[in-house]
Amino acid sequence: MSDQETPQKFVYDFTEGNKDLKDLLGGKGANLAEMTNLGLPVPPGFTITTDACKVYLRSGAEPAALREQVGAHLDALQERMGKRLGQPGDPLLVSVRSGAKFSMPGMMDTVLNVGLSDACVEGLAAQAGDERFAWDSYRRLIQMFGATVLGVAAERFDDALEQAKAEAGAVNDVDLDAGHLRDLVAVYHDIVRLDAGRDFPQDPREQLDLAVRAVFDSWNTERAKLYRRQERIPGDLGTAVNICSMVFGNLGPDSGTGVAFTRDPASGQQGVYGDYLQNAQGEDVVAGIRNTVPLADLAGLDQKSYDELMSIMETLETHYRDLCDIEFTIERGTLWMLQTRVGKRTAAAAFRIATQLVDQGLIDEAEALQRVNGAQLAQLMFPRFADKVTADRLGRGIAASPGAAVGKAVFDSYTAVKWSRSGEKVILIRRETNPDDLNGMIAAEGILTSRGGKTSHAAVVARGMGKTCVCGAEELEVDTKRRRMTAPGGVVVEEGDTVSIDGSTGKVYLGEVPVVPSPVVEYFEGRTHAGADDAGELVKAVHRMMAYADRMRRLRVRANADNAEDAARARRFGAQGIGLCRTEHMFLGERRELVERLILADTDEERTASLEALLPQQRDDFVDLFEAMDGLPVTVRLLDPPLHEFLPDITELSVRVALAESREDSNENDLRLLQAVHRLHEQNPMLGLRGVRLGLVIPGLFTMQVRAIAEAAAARRAAGGDPRAEIMIPLVGTVQELELVRDEAEQVIAQVQKRHDVDLHLALGTMIELPRAALTAGQIAEAAEFFSFGTNDLTQTVWGFSRDDVEASFFTAYLEKGIFGVSPFETIDRDGVGALVERACREGRATRPDLKLGVCGEHGGDPESVHFFHAVGLDYVSCSPFRIPVARLEAGRAAAAGT
Amino acid sequence: MSDQETPQKFVYDFTEGNKDLKDLLGGKGANLAEMTNLGLPVPPGFTITTDACKVYLRSGAEPAALREQVGAHLDALQERMGKRLGQPGDPLLVSVRSGAKFSMPGMMDTVLNVGLSDACVEGLAAQAGDERFAWDSYRRLIQMFGATVLGVAAERFDDALEQAKAEAGAVNDVDLDAGHLRDLVAVYHDIVRLDAGRDFPQDPREQLDLAVRAVFDSWNTERAKLYRRQERIPGDLGTAVNICSMVFGNLGPDSGTGVAFTRDPASGQQGVYGDYLQNAQGEDVVAGIRNTVPLADLAGLDQKSYDELMSIMETLETHYRDLCDIEFTIERGTLWMLQTRVGKRTAAAAFRIATQLVDQGLIDEAEALQRVNGAQLAQLMFPRFADKVTADRLGRGIAASPGAAVGKAVFDSYTAVKWSRSGEKVILIRRETNPDDLNGMIAAEGILTSRGGKTSHAAVVARGMGKTCVCGAEELEVDTKRRRMTAPGGVVVEEGDTVSIDGSTGKVYLGEVPVVPSPVVEYFEGRTHAGADDAGELVKAVHRMMAYADRMRRLRVRANADNAEDAARARRFGAQGIGLCRTEHMFLGERRELVERLILADTDEERTASLEALLPQQRDDFVDLFEAMDGLPVTVRLLDPPLHEFLPDITELSVRVALAESREDSNENDLRLLQAVHRLHEQNPMLGLRGVRLGLVIPGLFTMQVRAIAEAAAARRAAGGDPRAEIMIPLVGTVQELELVRDEAEQVIAQVQKRHDVDLHLALGTMIELPRAALTAGQIAEAAEFFSFGTNDLTQTVWGFSRDDVEASFFTAYLEKGIFGVSPFETIDRDGVGALVERACREGRATRPDLKLGVCGEHGGDPESVHFFHAVGLDYVSCSPFRIPVARLEAGRAAAAGT
Repeated sequence: MSDQETPQKFVYDFTEGNKDLKDLLGGKGANLAEMTNLGLPVPPGFTITTDACKVYLRSGAEPAALREQVGAHLDALQERMGKRLGQPGDPLLVSVRSGAKFSMPGMMDTVLNVGLSDACVEGLAAQAGDERFAWDSYRRLIQMFGATVLGVAAERFDDALEQAKAEAGAVNDVDLDAGHLRDLVAVYHDIVRLDAGRDFPQDPREQLDLAVRAVFDSWNTERAKLYRRQERIPGDLGTAVNICSMVFGNLGPDSGTGVAFTRDPASGQQGVYGDYLQNAQGEDVVAGIRNTVPLADLAGLDQKSYDELMSIMETLETHYRDLCDIEFTIERGTLWMLQTRVGKRTAAAAFRIATQLVDQGLIDEAEALQRVNGAQLAQLMFPRFADKVTADRLGRGIAASPGAAVGKAVFDSYTAVKWSRSGEKVILIRRETNPDDLNGMIAAEGILTSRGGKTSHAAVVARGMGKTCVCGAEELEVDTKRRRMTAPGGVVVEEGDTVSIDGSTGKVYLGEVPVVPSPVVEYFEGRTHAGADDAGELVKAVHRMMAYADRMRRLRVRANADNAEDAARARRFGAQGIGLCRTEHMFLGERRELVERLILADTDEERTASLEALLPQQRDDFVDLFEAMDGLPVTVRLLDPPLHEFLPDITELSVRVALAESREDSNENDLRLLQAVHRLHEQNPMLGLRGVRLGLVIPGLFTMQVRAIAEAAAARRAAGGDPRAEIMIPLVGTVQELELVRDEAEQVIAQVQKRHDVDLHLALGTMIELPRAALTAGQIAEAAEFFSFGTNDLTQTVWGFSRDDVEASFFTAYLEKGIFGVSPFETIDRDGVGALVERACREGRATRPDLKLGVCGEHGGDPESVHFFHAVGLDYVSCSPFRIPVARLEAGRAAAAGT
Repeated sequence: MSDQETPQKFVYDFTEGNKDLKDLLGGKGANLAEMTNLGLPVPPGFTITTDACKVYLRSGAEPAALREQVGAHLDALQERMGKRLGQPGDPLLVSVRSGAKFSMPGMMDTVLNVGLSDACVEGLAAQAGDERFAWDSYRRLIQMFGATVLGVAAERFDDALEQAKAEAGAVNDVDLDAGHLRDLVAVYHDIVRLDAGRDFPQDPREQLDLAVRAVFDSWNTERAKLYRRQERIPGDLGTAVNICSMVFGNLGPDSGTGVAFTRDPASGQQGVYGDYLQNAQGEDVVAGIRNTVPLADLAGLDQKSYDELMSIMETLETHYRDLCDIEFTIERGTLWMLQTRVGKRTAAAAFRIATQLVDQGLIDEAEALQRVNGAQLAQLMFPRFADKVTADRLGRGIAASPGAAVGKAVFDSYTAVKWSRSGEKVILIRRETNPDDLNGMIAAEGILTSRGGKTSHAAVVARGMGKTCVCGAEELEVDTKRRRMTAPGGVVVEEGDTVSIDGSTGKVYLGEVPVVPSPVVEYFEGRTHAGADDAGELVKAVHRMMAYADRMRRLRVRANADNAEDAARARRFGAQGIGLCRTEHMFLGERRELVERLILADTDEERTASLEALLPQQRDDFVDLFEAMDGLPVTVRLLDPPLHEFLPDITELSVRVALAESREDSNENDLRLLQAVHRLHEQNPMLGLRGVRLGLVIPGLFTMQVRAIAEAAAARRAAGGDPRAEIMIPLVGTVQELELVRDEAEQVIAQVQKRHDVDLHLALGTMIELPRAALTAGQIAEAAEFFSFGTNDLTQTVWGFSRDDVEASFFTAYLEKGIFGVSPFETIDRDGVGALVERACREGRATRPDLKLGVCGEHGGDPESVHFFHAVGLDYVSCSPFRIPVARLEAGRAAAAGT
C-alpha cells in the first residue's frame, strides 16, 4: 500500500481530536481538542501528530505529506480567523508548542508570535492600536526563535536588552517605549545574522516550519534523554506540536491572564482557587513584574468573563470528573481557554478530593482508588516539623526515611536503649549501622549516619520501621569513641545534646524543633482524631479509602515481624498474618554468644549444649508471636544469617592479637578464636555458608528450630489458642536440599504431635530467593507447600551486586546516568527479577495448583511492586508493619485497575 | 481396560528378549536374551521386568498377575530341564540376580542355589555323585539367603563357619568335608531361626518369591539411593530380576569357570584375553583360593570347549561391534555362557579399539566417536610416574589436576620464576594461591597447597593450564615465611629440596620419582612420537579420532589465552581463535602498582597519568597477541577485576598500622592507604564494583583499553597482518550499560580508524554472566554483536554461592549427600544455569539473527557441558589451551550423536 493511495493523516484540527488521543496528539493537544469539542472558547488551531515526529526522528526528514497537510490546515485556520500569516495590514500570529504524551523537562516549550515580520509589524500595531505592543511582540519572537530554534545563546539577547535599558535609563522592560523596542529589534536581527549565520526568516511559513522541526529535535536533547531513561519513558514515542492562533492579554486593562484550580490543590477543600494578572501575558506572571490578585477579584473587574469562567470550570470538572487546572487569557473582554489538565495536588488533597467526588456521584470507589497512591499515603504517615525552623542547621545528608525526629544525641545502641528506657527521647548517631544496632534503632526516635546511601543498612531498616533517618551526612564527623560529632565550622555535638533531624529533607539541626505527629498514624493506632479541621477531614477520607481498598483487593497483606510487639502493631495496621519472622533477629543480643559457640563448636557435645540452651528461648519467642497473631498465619523462616555477622570481625581481632603479641601478652582464647575465624572467613559472605546450607552442615540446628515451633504451637493449642504456623526454609537452590530438611522436619513434627496428641497442621515451604530456585520452581514445588519470594536476595543475585556494597560505589552514578530510573532494591525490576518471579509462579502452580504464593522482600511494601505482585497472581504480600496500610491501598488499587 | 482383558506381561523367557530391551529387562537380562537368540549356550531361564518392580515399589505389593506368570515360566523351565525345583531325587536349582538398566552398587546382587532344601540335598548329592558338593551348595544358599533376603547379619554365618573350621582343625573352607558341612547347615538353620524369627523356607517356590522381593526392595537401600542421586539416575526406573538355571563349575577337573575379553582392555591390542580357574565357581575366583591360569591354557585342558569359546567370542564381537567381556562356566565338559556385556577398557584401549573397528568395517566414524570420550583423552594428556614408587610419601591431598610433577620446593612465586628461568624445575608450595601467584604457577612444574578443594583457585587454574596440582593437603604444614613445609612425623621440606606430586592420586613424595611425558601431548605439540610400540599406536589412533571429530563438529573451538605464548600453544592444540583474553591478567606483576594508583587516584591528573602509562604497554600486549592469532578472531575482554585484588589486604594493612602506632612509628603513607582501602572495602567483592561498573565509574579506563586494541590492530594491519579483534564488555546487567560503553568505544575506534585510514572491523559484544543479562538478552542483543556466556560467574549468581567460599564449607557435604552429582562449577547445571543460557540464546537470536554465540567459562572445556552447548546452538566454545583437544573431540561427538 503506497503513501499516494492513502496518505497518512499527520495533522488534526482541534475540532478533530479528543482527550483520549494523548498517544497521537500529546497531552496538551488532546485536551485542547477536548475543550474545543465541549464548545469552550479555545483559539482555533491544529496539532501535528507524534507519528510525524517519529518519521522525522527515524529518517531525519519530515514525512513528505506533512508540508501539504500543514498548508491545508493553515489555510483553513486563516480562513476562519479572517487573516493570514504575514498579512501586512492585519497579520495572523500563532504559537508553536511541544506536547508529548508525558510532560518532559528538557524539551522545547513554546515559541509565541510566530508570523510576525518586518513587513507586518506595523500592521499589527495599527490593528492593536498599540505600537509598543507590536514591537515588543516582534522583539520577543526574535528572542525566543533565535534562542530555541536557531541555537543562539540566550545571554546574547539578554545582554542586548540590558544595554538598551541602560541606554534608555529604563529600570524595567516596561519602561522601554516603542522606539526603544524598534531599535532593539534591529540589534536582535544583527545578533541572529552574526551568531546563527543567517537572517531571521521573514517568511512566516518558514518560521513555522523551522519551529516545528526544532520541537521535533528537542525530543532528543541530552536532558530529555536522561529524563526518559530515569522515568523509563520509551525513547521512540515522539512529541506532538500544537499550532494555535495567538490571543493577547496585554492589550489594555480589559485584558489579562490567569491560572485557576477547580478545588484547593493544597487541602482538597471544595471551591475555586486561582490568580489573575491584569493587562499581562502568561510569561509576565512568571517574571513576577507585578503581583497577581486572587481570582475572585476578577468578578469586580469583568463580571461577564468571571461568570463565564466559573461556568466553564464547572463544565470541566464534571467532564473530567476530577480537579482541573486551567490557563486562560482575556483579550479585550473576550475569555479564551489556553490549556486545561487534571491538576496536581498534595497527598492530603488527593484523599479528600477522591472521597468528595464519590459523594458527588462523579466517580465510583474503584475510580476513587486510582486518584490516590501509596506514596501519598506513606507521606501522610510521617510526623513533620511544625513551622518555620529557627534552630541552627548543622548539616545535610540524604533524606533516607521521611519524618521529623528530635532527641538527645547518643552514639551507641547500648546508651540508646538505656536512655530510652529511662524515658529519654534519643537520636542514634553512627558512622554507619549494622544488625547489632537494631535494638538501638528500635529505641531511638531517629537515626543519623555519616556514611551510606538510600539503600544502606540504616536507611533500609529505618524505612522498614517507619523511623526517621538521615544517612550519609558526610560533612558531619562522627567520633564514636569520644561520643561526639563535629559539624563544619567546628560546632561539636556531645552525647546528650539535643538534635533534630528531618527525614524528608535530610536536614540536621542543633536543638529542638517542634514536631507534629501524623494524624493518619494516630488513626491507624486507634488513637482516633476527632474534629472537623483539616486533619479530621483527612482522617475521614483515609478511613473511607482504606475501606474501598480492602473491599476491592485480592492480595492479602501480611507483616514482616520478628516479635510479639511488632506483630501486635502490625495487626492494628491491618496485617492479616506474618509473612516473615526472621529467626536470626531472635539470636542477637545476649543469645549471640550461644550462636557463636554453636558455630565454633568442635565437638558434638558443645553443639548439643548450645542447641539445648537455645530451644526453650526460641519456644517462648514463638509462643508470644503465635499469641499476638492468634488465628492468622505466621511464617517462620529458619535461621539465615551471613556467618560473619555472628563472628568477631577478622580485622579487629587480628589487630588485637598482633598488638598483644607485640607486648608479649598473648591471650590463648583470642588466638584460638582467630584461628577459627580464619577457618570460617568468607571472601563473600553473601555467597557463602548461609540458610539451608548452614542447616545441612550444622547438625541439629534446623531440627531445634522446628521443634521449638511445633512445641510452641502445641502449647498455644493447649491454652485454647489457634496458632497457624508455617515453616519456611531459606536459600534453597535445588529441590534436594528442601527434601532433606523436610524429611527431618516432618519427623520432629510427628514426634511433637504424638507427644501432645494434637494435629498441628504445620505447612512447610521455602523462600524463592535464588535464581536457581526460580528457574527450577516446578521441581521445588514438589516438596514445598508455599513459596515466598525473597526479592531482596533475588535482586542481589540476578543483578550480581550486593546491597551493602554497591550503593556507595556506583549506584549514584547509575541513577545519574539514567541506567536505573529507580534502585531495583526499592521497586522490583520487572524485566529481570520480575521475569523470574513470573516464571516461578507459573511453573510452581503447574506442579501444585494450590501452591500458596507470597513475597516477603522489601518490595512487598513498595507501591509499584505491589501492582506487579497482583498481576502475577500472588496470594499475599508481606512487608514491615509501617508499610502495611500502603500495601493494602495499593493492593486495592491494583485490583480496581484490573492490572 | 481392565487387567483381566489384557494382563500385562511381567515375565520374559530368555528366548523372548533382546539387547535393546534394557529399559524393561535390565542390562543383564537383555544380554542373556540376546545370547540365547544368537544360539549361544545360555542356561535356560527368564527375566521379571522392571515394570513389575515399579508396581511393587509404588503399591508395596507384587502385581497380581506376577505369581501366575512366574509359575507358568517356571513350569516351562522345569519341563525343558527335565527336573523340578525341590524334586527330592534330582532337584533343579536356579540363581536369582538383580539387573537394573544401569549397574548400581548397593543393590542386592545374587542368590545362588535357590531350590535346595532338606528334602532334596541328598538327591543333589546322588545326582552329582559328590556329597560334599551338595552340602556345600546348601550351606551357601542358607548363608546368602539368610543375609540378603532375611536380613541376618553376615558375620553370624562367618563366625559359625570359622568355629566349624576351628573345631575340625581345618585351615581353609575346602578342608571341611561333607560331614562338617552337614553339621554347619544345622547350625545355620538355628542362626536363621533365632535371628530372622522364622525357619529357613523349605518350599522352593517360597525361596524364589522371597528372593525376588528382596531384589525389588534392594532398589531403595540408602546406598543405592545415594548412588542414584549422585549419578542422576531417576529413582523410579526399578530393577529387573533374572532367574537362571544353575550350572556348576565345581564338579571336578572337567569343570571350571572363567572371564574373558575379546581384546586387551588395557592396551587395546587385538586378541583374546582372560583367566580360567579349574573346578571352581565364580565366587571362588573372587575369594582367591587358588591362582587362575591364562585363558590360553584352557586349550590344553579342554580343546573342544576352548574352540567353542573362541568362536562364540568372535560371534559376540561381530554382533555387538565392540569389545565384549564374558563370564562362562564349563560343567563336566559342557560350556555355558553366564553373562556378556560391552567391556570396560582403559582410555588408551578405547582409542585404539575404536579405530580398529573402523578398519574392520564394523563401525563408521560417527560411531567410533561414541566409543571414546573427552575424559579419556584428558587422562591420556597427563604425564605419569613411571613404575612402582620407592620414594617416601610425605602426605596426601586432593587430586586436583592430574599428572606427575617433580621439582625443587619453592614457597613463593618470585622464587619460582627466578629458579625456573635459571633452568630449575620447581614445585610451587603455598597454603593457598591467588591471582598474584599466576606467574609462579606458570613457571612451576606443579602446584601443591595445604588448603582449598577441587574448585579452589589453585585447582581451577592448574586444571586450566593442564598443570599437575595437589591441593588441600591439610596434614602438611606450610610455613611461607620460613620457606619450609612440615609433614606428619616431623619431616621438614626446606626450600630447594626435591618433591614429587601425583595429581591423579593426590600423593606427595619426598625426592624424585621418575616421570614419563604423555605421548599424546608430544603429538599435539608437534614433537611426533614415531615407532610401533603402544605409545606410537596410541598416537596414531588419537590422530585419526581427532580428524573424525574435526570433520564432524559444528562447534568451533577457541582458547582462553592472555598472552602470545599461550595463544601459540593453543594454535598447536587446534584453537580456532581466542574466545577470552582476560586483560586483568595483563595488569599483574609490575603493572599492578599502576593499577593501584589508578584506582586510588584522587585527581583527574593522577588518573590520566596512570592511564597514559598503561596505554603503550597494553598496545604492545595486543600486537603480540594478534600476531600469534593472525587471521583468527581474538576476543578481548575489558578489565574485570574484583577491586580488592588490586588493593592491599585490609587485615594485613590494619595490623601493620596498629603495630606501627603502638611503636609510635606511624607511616603517613600507610595511614593514607588504609583510609583509601577502608573507603573502597567491599563486604562481597564478587558482588561489588567490577566489570562494566568499574568502566563506567573510572573515566577513561575502558577507552584506554579500546584505544590500545584499535591501535594494535592498526599496527598489525600496517605490518601486513590480518588482526580480527572483538571487544567484549564484562558484567553487563542491562542494555543501558552496554549502550553507554559502546557509544564511547565507537568514538575512539572511529578516531583511530581515521588517523590510520583503515577500517578495522572491530566487533563489540558482551559477556552474559549475570542472570539479568540472560533474562534480558533480547534487549541486550540490540547493542551487542556477540554474546559470550561467562558460565563461571553465571553459576555463582544463579546458585548464590562463590567459588572461593563454598567448597571448603559445604560442597563436600553436598556431594556426599547427593545434592550434587558433580560440582556445578565443573559441569554446567542444565536445569538452572542451562535454562538461562538456552533462553538467552533464543531471545538474543530473535532480536539479531546473526548474533554470534560462544562460551568462555571453564565449562567450555568440560565434556558433558560441550554437548549442552552444541545442543543450544552456540557457534563456539572457548577453553584453556590444554582442554582444546578435549573440546574438539566432544564437539565432534556431540555432532555425531545428533544431540
